[in-house]
Amino acid sequence: MSEILNADHEYRAHADQHASLRLWLRLLSCTTRVEDKIRQKLRESFDITLPRFDLMAQLERHPDGLSMGELSRRMMVTGGNITTIVDQLEKEKLVLRQVGVNDRRSFTVKLTKAGREAFADMAFAHEEWVADIFSGLSNNQQSHLYTLLGAMKKNLQKQEEMT
Amino acid sequence: MSEILNADHEYRAHADQHASLRLWLRLLSCTTRVEDKIRQKLRESFDITLPRFDLMAQLERHPDGLSMGELSRRMMVTGGNITTIVDQLEKEKLVLRQVGVNDRRSFTVKLTKAGREAFADMAFAHEEWVADIFSGLSNNQQSHLYTLLGAMKKNLQKQEEMT
Repeated sequence: MSEILNADHEYRAHADQHASLRLWLRLLSCTTRVEDKIRQKLRESFDITLPRFDLMAQLERHPDGLSMGELSRRMMVTGGNITTIVDQLEKEKLVLRQVGVNDRRSFTVKLTKAGREAFADMAFAHEEWVADIFSGLSNNQQSHLYTLLGAMKKNLQKQEEMT
Repeated sequence: MSEILNADHEYRAHADQHASLRLWLRLLSCTTRVEDKIRQKLRESFDITLPRFDLMAQLERHPDGLSMGELSRRMMVTGGNITTIVDQLEKEKLVLRQVGVNDRRSFTVKLTKAGREAFADMAFAHEEWVADIFSGLSNNQQSHLYTLLGAMKKNLQKQEEMT
């Protein structure tokens, strides 16, 4: 009897594991599809890359500027070389590097006024695209998804604190 | 009165838009965190990159082999140069290039027996990590999340067919 129970538990454990994997692959595939769509829209409408948009978005949220290390940690998408993007944006006068007061070897990156304006246009369009992409889900479904992802995020944080 | 209603609708539309953006940023952030975790585990345990794992996973699902174009379309993560990864895997005898029967300029990439065995070990560990990462959510929450993401995926497909 205990052997049967055991076997059943193992089967169950394996099925749960498999369900988690399916969930993860679906989560990854949904995210990738939306990312690809936004990537394409940014290219078509503003001729810019997603990492560049992401970098400007991080700077917009931090008006006092961010160090290169902080920028790198805060980026939400992968694939862009941060130094290269900052160099390009600086050349276009959309960001500036500010040397540290206490440590002249360190510097922070900030949006310029022109950078903030350019980003505002893109952010406005971006918000519309995202609303459009999610428009197939009802408000109720969206809010439910938001709550479940919130629980997931909380658990991820807890796990990270434990390691 | 109609003006008030109008204003209210606009407010509502804007609030919905904003809710979609929040949802998207949370979806992106959850996915990025899990991806980072898996990336780190793959490096620590098998000394390989996530794009390399992803590429082998795609080949494992297609035993008849995939062309470079198909591989590129099926990859679920970004950031790896596919030609470079295939070259490395070929050098390590984990994949082979097979010249096309009808078109000698075309070729497909396949896992070798050693490649399938190496991937099986990684896939087993990967499934355990994923189960562990999602273990903070109940089976019920996971299945609900899976269903909502399914609705989202369906809508994304519909939208893609319409464009």
